[in-house]
Amino acid sequence: MAESHASRRDALRAQIREQGLDGLLVLDLLNVRYLSGFTGSNAAMLVVADQDAGGVDVFCTDGRYTTQARRQVPDLRHVIERASGPAVAAEARGRVGFESQHVSVDGLDVLIAASPGELVRAPGLVERLRLVKDEAEVEALRMACAAADRALADLVEHGGLRVGRTEREVGRELESRMLDHGADAPSFTSIVAAGANSAIPHHRPTDAVLRAGDLVKLDFGAVIDGYHSDMTRTLVLGAPADWQRELYDLVALAQSAGRGALAPGARVADVDAAARGVIERAGRGEQFPHGLGHGVGLQIHEAPSLAKTGGGTLAAGMAVTVEPGVYLPGRGGVRIEDTLVVRDAGPELLTLTTKQLMVV
Amino acid sequence: MAESHASRRDALRAQIREQGLDGLLVLDLLNVRYLSGFTGSNAAMLVVADQDAGGVDVFCTDGRYTTQARRQVPDLRHVIERASGPAVAAEARGRVGFESQHVSVDGLDVLIAASPGELVRAPGLVERLRLVKDEAEVEALRMACAAADRALADLVEHGGLRVGRTEREVGRELESRMLDHGADAPSFTSIVAAGANSAIPHHRPTDAVLRAGDLVKLDFGAVIDGYHSDMTRTLVLGAPADWQRELYDLVALAQSAGRGALAPGARVADVDAAARGVIERAGRGEQFPHGLGHGVGLQIHEAPSLAKTGGGTLAAGMAVTVEPGVYLPGRGGVRIEDTLVVRDAGPELLTLTTKQLMVV
Repeated sequence: MAESHASRRDALRAQIREQGLDGLLVLDLLNVRYLSGFTGSNAAMLVVADQDAGGVDVFCTDGRYTTQARRQVPDLRHVIERASGPAVAAEARGRVGFESQHVSVDGLDVLIAASPGELVRAPGLVERLRLVKDEAEVEALRMACAAADRALADLVEHGGLRVGRTEREVGRELESRMLDHGADAPSFTSIVAAGANSAIPHHRPTDAVLRAGDLVKLDFGAVIDGYHSDMTRTLVLGAPADWQRELYDLVALAQSAGRGALAPGARVADVDAAARGVIERAGRGEQFPHGLGHGVGLQIHEAPSLAKTGGGTLAAGMAVTVEPGVYLPGRGGVRIEDTLVVRDAGPELLTLTTKQLMVV
Repeated sequence: MAESHASRRDALRAQIREQGLDGLLVLDLLNVRYLSGFTGSNAAMLVVADQDAGGVDVFCTDGRYTTQARRQVPDLRHVIERASGPAVAAEARGRVGFESQHVSVDGLDVLIAASPGELVRAPGLVERLRLVKDEAEVEALRMACAAADRALADLVEHGGLRVGRTEREVGRELESRMLDHGADAPSFTSIVAAGANSAIPHHRPTDAVLRAGDLVKLDFGAVIDGYHSDMTRTLVLGAPADWQRELYDLVALAQSAGRGALAPGARVADVDAAARGVIERAGRGEQFPHGLGHGVGLQIHEAPSLAKTGGGTLAAGMAVTVEPGVYLPGRGGVRIEDTLVVRDAGPELLTLTTKQLMVV
């Protein structure tokens, strides 16, 4: 992995030069992790525009992490200091950018006081790189998606979804099974929503009991090596009613249209429209009140946003979710969600659980 | 709880007036929760200096939370808007403070553009109130500590700590048992450190196996209603060796001295010194490389910091941890930690698990 971190820093270096800067202070912890591989809770970096010109990248963490940093970040100069941001600011020379979307108004004062350099705003440079995943990142996402797939398969196979259990019990078993399959943690508190609760888009598990005939919506994911998977499946407990099957088929069709629209160069608003159009033409546009999807990676929600109001286009290597839903208040709802990677030859599906309506 | 939120807002109002401000924009989500009871993932507030003068507090969240906000925050005027910060900034009139330690440099631009008011820095006003817990907060902490106590008792009683299990398995069982006892989540990834690993202050559970004669350090806690408990116990698997018992007795003595120093008006540096002195006089000062403790509440680490370099004094109602540790690299370490509330009549212990050396 050390090579991929070095090549990410080199890609950032090109951006730093493009901005006419001599370096960038990286204070956001996820951005530091992306550029260095460090997983501790306190760190900052200075990445210089030109290593050949005598400048050198600097990594700073505090004394709790001396050993861990030596192991995870063997290839950078280390400074050990509790106040990691000011410590790297003190190493900055010339015109140096800072992440103005992350640094607080008070924090900037402290950086300026510590730095001999001239600090200028430079938001989003690392985030721009993080939009397109390299193969090491896709591999982590693939493992995270596989852990979720396997957990759901185990849950179903071992009768974990049955009449009489509570949403909370199902959620705990799902999360426990993801850990069994190598997850470091769940991506977020799993959504388990049964019956009428499935009509609430972001319902959190309660002591409500699963009943025969319920739609059960499961939205969950696993974190592996810092990367988040995200998947939703909606199942039926027992034989589906006609309205449930119709609803399911509509959402599945919309989800398929959304996946089909994923291509390098596609406008994100058009991807949203491809799925949303299917639902609108069925007269259910009002019942799909959220965006189609979002980027995933070191964060569970990151750019790009696949939404009506989203700007920009897709590129090969972006990892996104596609998750249309239709919700009938008081009755139930269906959402189907995959995590995929945009590829030239068509999207690569990372969440492999069937999208046939599962009847358990 | 609605009354306690209203009285917190009134206490903040007094601070706002003291600063000569007409209001405060509260954008930090935990501060919003503290003042309103709202638990969603997007919200902001405007608290005005004087409600009688025609001003009125405003609460903003987005469309996902309309129903939840109506239930959790029945007593405030609501605005529904995705960009909650700018939306409340638009309601500000006169000279209005913003939380300059939380608002980013770029974020401030957006607030200024949205607001007809004059925005001035006002860091830490809500945090200052949060230092002293009211009885509703202490009750939540008490429940969170009880969930952790019970989980450890269950773990020991059911033989969960035994030779041959991995640190990871013990951690998962401990966390699962906290959920059984009403925890919404663990406070943080539990530390389970066996044998030589117990000498690493912030070790994370691995597949290392518990062996006879090991010291086993367990540092864990539960979240209930947003409030975090924090407790460490160190046990021995089988009959303790002399050096283990000596180490344990030293840390227990230091921890007792630290607890004894908790009193309204005590300087936090003196509390640290009370415990540290015991360890230093035993010639082990170098082997206690961290602060004595920290505040707990809506965050697992918050003010005050009980450390050598800490400033300020304690007040009745502050909730803090006391957690000295002595670590012998390659051999093992002992840490003993409680969560307590500073009271006039002496500290109130919230974590009730015995501090006698447990031999399992």
